[in-house]
Amino acid sequence: MQTDNLLKQITFIKEIDKLKYILRKTKLFNSDRNENDAEHSWHLAMMTIVLAEHSNKPIDVLKVLKMVLIHDIVEIDAGDTFLYDTTKSHTNTEQELIAAKRLFGLLPKEQAKEFIAIWQEFEDGITDDAKFAKSMDRLEPLLQNTSNNGGTWKEFDVPYEKVYDKKKAIKEGSTAIWEYAENLINESVEKGILRKSID
Amino acid sequence: MQTDNLLKQITFIKEIDKLKYILRKTKLFNSDRNENDAEHSWHLAMMTIVLAEHSNKPIDVLKVLKMVLIHDIVEIDAGDTFLYDTTKSHTNTEQELIAAKRLFGLLPKEQAKEFIAIWQEFEDGITDDAKFAKSMDRLEPLLQNTSNNGGTWKEFDVPYEKVYDKKKAIKEGSTAIWEYAENLINESVEKGILRKSID
Repeated sequence: MQTDNLLKQITFIKEIDKLKYILRKTKLFNSDRNENDAEHSWHLAMMTIVLAEHSNKPIDVLKVLKMVLIHDIVEIDAGDTFLYDTTKSHTNTEQELIAAKRLFGLLPKEQAKEFIAIWQEFEDGITDDAKFAKSMDRLEPLLQNTSNNGGTWKEFDVPYEKVYDKKKAIKEGSTAIWEYAENLINESVEKGILRKSID
Repeated sequence: MQTDNLLKQITFIKEIDKLKYILRKTKLFNSDRNENDAEHSWHLAMMTIVLAEHSNKPIDVLKVLKMVLIHDIVEIDAGDTFLYDTTKSHTNTEQELIAAKRLFGLLPKEQAKEFIAIWQEFEDGITDDAKFAKSMDRLEPLLQNTSNNGGTWKEFDVPYEKVYDKKKAIKEGSTAIWEYAENLINESVEKGILRKSID
């Protein structure tokens, strides 16, 4: 049984290497090079460890780490969806659910169930753990865009109002981090790297 | 105090983005593209979650995750050292200690102390947590090299005996995983992708 589990787990470990090829729209800090999903997931895990003390509510850090480490694995099959994509919802598409079942389904049965549940909890964004994980996922590209003279905001002409609307989810996880993030967004307008809508 | 901590933490979070530029000798699975340290660290974290049940001794999974997520951050300053480098020891060089103090020293004092201690525990490799973390660090490139027709073993002409000698540390973390790994090494010799020394 243990050997059987191990073989399934090794298959999964090899398969998820593909996450390193899934490119995000955002670029690395002070850079022109697109970030890939594995790098992004590592960075969110580091942010979780470092920033956990600022969570509004007590969180299970191990659970949040699992969330951020696995949250984008479905993109191996379903591809990356840009946060400001107007034609496609970012979360919980049918395609992503099928991907979750195929990819996590490579694992032993109990583990597959656990991983799908954790992924779903993140997507739903209702629990305190999921709220904090989501705030990490919103904060990283904000830091990247401000370091890149507007980054994807400029590249895809995303106005302040849309950025503010998406980023305010940070507050659900941490009011302290949101205070910092809100300042950063406002400063970006002042600096001219983020434009306000005309109407 | 909380704001002061947050600013230091954000500085650290930006600085460690540089880990994405540190290239390892090993290549991605079935690939010619070098892996970088951030991708590697994410993969070890995933392996830790997935394979924890095979540990010889009970481990603190959160602690092991912290270890594998931060274990290579010193390489931002000190650079990557190849496992089979004959001129330079892989672990605990003076240069790496200086790097640890500078990089983790960007964090608030208590957190810096915690991170340096976790990094040191990993390097020392004595505790059960460190042994399991090290076994993950040894297993990933083994899987990569076998997927790449010998990979770095061929590229740098590393013989079976040296590979076996380095990889047997896996046994300290997990005899079940070592059994699998030992088979993989022996099969590699049979397949002709890993050579035995002449003498």
